[in-house]
Amino acid sequence: MKERSDADFIEAGDAAACPPCIAQPLFVLVQPSRAGNVGAAARAIKTLGFEQLALVAARHRDVRAQPEALAFASGADDVLRAAREGQSLDAVAADCGVLVALSARVRDFGPPLHGPDWLPQLARSAAAQGRRVAFVFGNERAGLDNATVYGCDALLSLPTSPQYGSLNLSQAVQIVAWEWRRALGGFTLPQGPQAEPAATRAEVRELLEQARRALLALGFLDPAAPRRLIPRLERLAARSALSRQEVQILRGICRAVLLRCEQGD
Amino acid sequence: MKERSDADFIEAGDAAACPPCIAQPLFVLVQPSRAGNVGAAARAIKTLGFEQLALVAARHRDVRAQPEALAFASGADDVLRAAREGQSLDAVAADCGVLVALSARVRDFGPPLHGPDWLPQLARSAAAQGRRVAFVFGNERAGLDNATVYGCDALLSLPTSPQYGSLNLSQAVQIVAWEWRRALGGFTLPQGPQAEPAATRAEVRELLEQARRALLALGFLDPAAPRRLIPRLERLAARSALSRQEVQILRGICRAVLLRCEQGD
Repeated sequence: MKERSDADFIEAGDAAACPPCIAQPLFVLVQPSRAGNVGAAARAIKTLGFEQLALVAARHRDVRAQPEALAFASGADDVLRAAREGQSLDAVAADCGVLVALSARVRDFGPPLHGPDWLPQLARSAAAQGRRVAFVFGNERAGLDNATVYGCDALLSLPTSPQYGSLNLSQAVQIVAWEWRRALGGFTLPQGPQAEPAATRAEVRELLEQARRALLALGFLDPAAPRRLIPRLERLAARSALSRQEVQILRGICRAVLLRCEQGD
Repeated sequence: MKERSDADFIEAGDAAACPPCIAQPLFVLVQPSRAGNVGAAARAIKTLGFEQLALVAARHRDVRAQPEALAFASGADDVLRAAREGQSLDAVAADCGVLVALSARVRDFGPPLHGPDWLPQLARSAAAQGRRVAFVFGNERAGLDNATVYGCDALLSLPTSPQYGSLNLSQAVQIVAWEWRRALGGFTLPQGPQAEPAATRAEVRELLEQARRALLALGFLDPAAPRRLIPRLERLAARSALSRQEVQILRGICRAVLLRCEQGD
């Protein structure tokens, strides 16, 4: 029960109320070999409102200052520069309480395997217990070694195509950040375009009546064989959810047709 | 009603039964300027089982053969090489029936704005009407121009951080592919590690009894002031969901403690 009440913010979608242990998880890259991926990972997490990056035994010395890393970080160079660096996972994740290893491969004796649907549950339990969450990503080619995976609390797998499932490292980071933000309630959508005032039912009926007269004048509607033309137009009008202004434009077109037909007679 | 019955595959998560108009949507990059992003987009969609890429007025001539594009495509060079190229959106998306523009910016008179939660509904209606879906992404810096957006049927926005929402182009493609795959029912998770046979309740009780004896022998458990030590261990054991083998290991440890205590006496 305690767990529930501590984690109500998740159900409420209230990201601002998330405790820091889950609001700012640590994204750990173990032995990343490409500086571009390190920068792209910084950008990926920042776009979802996260800022804690850690690097374990990166291949490039001082990778955070590499031009390629900075170029890929784009406006997230602050996240890149602030990244923790260390020679072991234990060193960089010492303050974390739940280590989640990203891995497509399942191992005997490994920690339990979960999909992204498990993340909301993880967020609730980590928040209730005050455990800081870390997501641990392996090297671009080799992934995570067994010893690292055994030391983690859970395995997270991102289901991809059975034919070609090879996510780029920074893309995997992007998806985990995206799914974690969703688990915390998500960001709100910007307001859509201001809807125009809707046409009333009476206005639409007047339009249809004027259209009927114009189609008769055109000779397109044959009163002897109407062929369900008017019911079809009624259905189209209903589906289109016309605005008042659109009805006025369409009535103007009908009037122009009627005028032209009268002139021709 | 018809729409429902045509789209039952989505509720059933049966991606194999999806009609081609939604199973293979077209991912269109309008005026992409970086060859690496084009290659990374090819890889991104292939990891989610999609293979239809189109390029409108790419900045690099013959971008599909650029070494940078091929390097970022990695094992998705087939998708990259097969991409449609054209000078206009109409030219490359002529066979599509629903054009979805990716855009964070809302425009007056623009098409209606949706978030990713709308995609399952789009999949159902597009399948029911046999409309092929296209996702349209703009240039890295400038996004999509107004004329292109007005020509699309809907706007899709990926909610990102209000402080820094700038997704890299290929990362946006990755998220849309990820969400579209989810809308189609998703890929299945690999099988988790084979669970070891669970310990029975009787085996756990024997372990706890042996632990009690070992702790008494150690002098750690004081029968005069037991301090809820045993109930705590019971609770820990229950939460740990012990396997039979783990119980045997723990009983072995208790035995070793008892033996050492007897030798010491």
